[in-house]
Amino acid sequence: MIIVGELINASRKAIAEAIEKQDAVAIQKVATDQHENGADYIDVNAGVFVGQEVEYLKWLVSTVQAVVDTPCSIDSPDPKAIEAALQLHKGTAMINSISLEKERYDSLLPIVAGTDLKVVALCMSDEGMPETVDDRMKIADKLVNGLLQNNVPVENIYVDPLVQPVATNNQFGLEFLRAIEKVMTTFEGIHTLCGLSNISFGLPERKFLNQTFMIMAIANGLDGAILNPLDKKMMANIIAAEALMGKDEYCANYLMAYRAKKFEI
Amino acid sequence: MIIVGELINASRKAIAEAIEKQDAVAIQKVATDQHENGADYIDVNAGVFVGQEVEYLKWLVSTVQAVVDTPCSIDSPDPKAIEAALQLHKGTAMINSISLEKERYDSLLPIVAGTDLKVVALCMSDEGMPETVDDRMKIADKLVNGLLQNNVPVENIYVDPLVQPVATNNQFGLEFLRAIEKVMTTFEGIHTLCGLSNISFGLPERKFLNQTFMIMAIANGLDGAILNPLDKKMMANIIAAEALMGKDEYCANYLMAYRAKKFEI
Repeated sequence: MIIVGELINASRKAIAEAIEKQDAVAIQKVATDQHENGADYIDVNAGVFVGQEVEYLKWLVSTVQAVVDTPCSIDSPDPKAIEAALQLHKGTAMINSISLEKERYDSLLPIVAGTDLKVVALCMSDEGMPETVDDRMKIADKLVNGLLQNNVPVENIYVDPLVQPVATNNQFGLEFLRAIEKVMTTFEGIHTLCGLSNISFGLPERKFLNQTFMIMAIANGLDGAILNPLDKKMMANIIAAEALMGKDEYCANYLMAYRAKKFEI
Repeated sequence: MIIVGELINASRKAIAEAIEKQDAVAIQKVATDQHENGADYIDVNAGVFVGQEVEYLKWLVSTVQAVVDTPCSIDSPDPKAIEAALQLHKGTAMINSISLEKERYDSLLPIVAGTDLKVVALCMSDEGMPETVDDRMKIADKLVNGLLQNNVPVENIYVDPLVQPVATNNQFGLEFLRAIEKVMTTFEGIHTLCGLSNISFGLPERKFLNQTFMIMAIANGLDGAILNPLDKKMMANIIAAEALMGKDEYCANYLMAYRAKKFEI
């Protein structure tokens, strides 16, 4: 499972304050904590600072990478911010995310074309949010084929089928889960990656529902997620689900996590 | 989800003692507790009492049905014990279970043929335990077609693909999950039902692994389980997973269980 640590996001109050104060120590602690708890990428997002996003995103990348080797997931729809951040970035970054919205697609495609960057391909278009498996596959087909034709290898593409709340429509969970399976079987070698927390919008005990849905998504082939790696219950669910899916030889990772008391159940 | 309450099983020490003492009050409390916590069937098993199984199984059925309307799951491979229990049973019982083992198949088929009994069809044959999806489907095909030809309607058949421990072979979980999906899509209107606890044999935190695997099985279409309905964590997982699968209109059951504080998370 590829884990993208989601915590360094300026939509969170403490992070926005740390960014404004240029408090490197605070940001670096969040980066280190996520790295030590299993993040493969550290997401950096300064989207709330209109007009200052470029400057702040650059600062986040260099601040994070001063203390951890983990690559960043550069979380912005703005090509200028992404390009500026990439110039400072060490290692192979993840771009979060391209979509089929025309302006976003046209401006981000040249940045990732022919590179070895990892790319999140979000199933969203100018026609709005997808609801069914078919809606998602139509967008995914165009996005993936566009990336392949522009020399982005399939194994660097992470399709995000876009979770929508089950409280809005009780088929939204199932349609998402089926889309995960369909993407994983249609494009050999591809990845799927998403944030799952929208699924529980409008319902009580959201963390519990998110954890349950994560297990179901893994059962359908999901192999990446953007989440809080400090959530030990969520991480335990992922480790257990991967062992049960046959992705953990001799259950070694499960046993190691258990012995290290790394997870809560 | 069809829940079969598993607690009245003579392999459990307290139950064996209650049976030997003919302590109806003790048995009836376990039956009532399971009924009140969501059991659709109350499993009754007196298999450890060789020579007395017939007598004890009859006593269990009449003792249980004196206090709850819930039908029983008559849990025995012995046709004599099943026939005796059925004579006393009110409502439509479940037979747990027929299998493809020749002696068991030949002796149980006449009991269920042409009836409206529910039948658990266990994927086991004289060639031993199945390991792969194909092993399971070969057995399931023969069992289901045999039952159909003997006028057991498809909706009364509950295929148990037989869980094996993931610690023995790390593909055993995945093969089981795929078998659930295959059975559910191959035979329209059929059910799947099983006990899941074997999955975690040999590993620590078994309850946690069993709960995780239950969620994964539901994501693959499982619609029945034999389990302890007093396990509120397990029941919460099932209620949440069914809501996320679109089987709970308006998430009404989830919200009701939450408000009634019926489940632990």
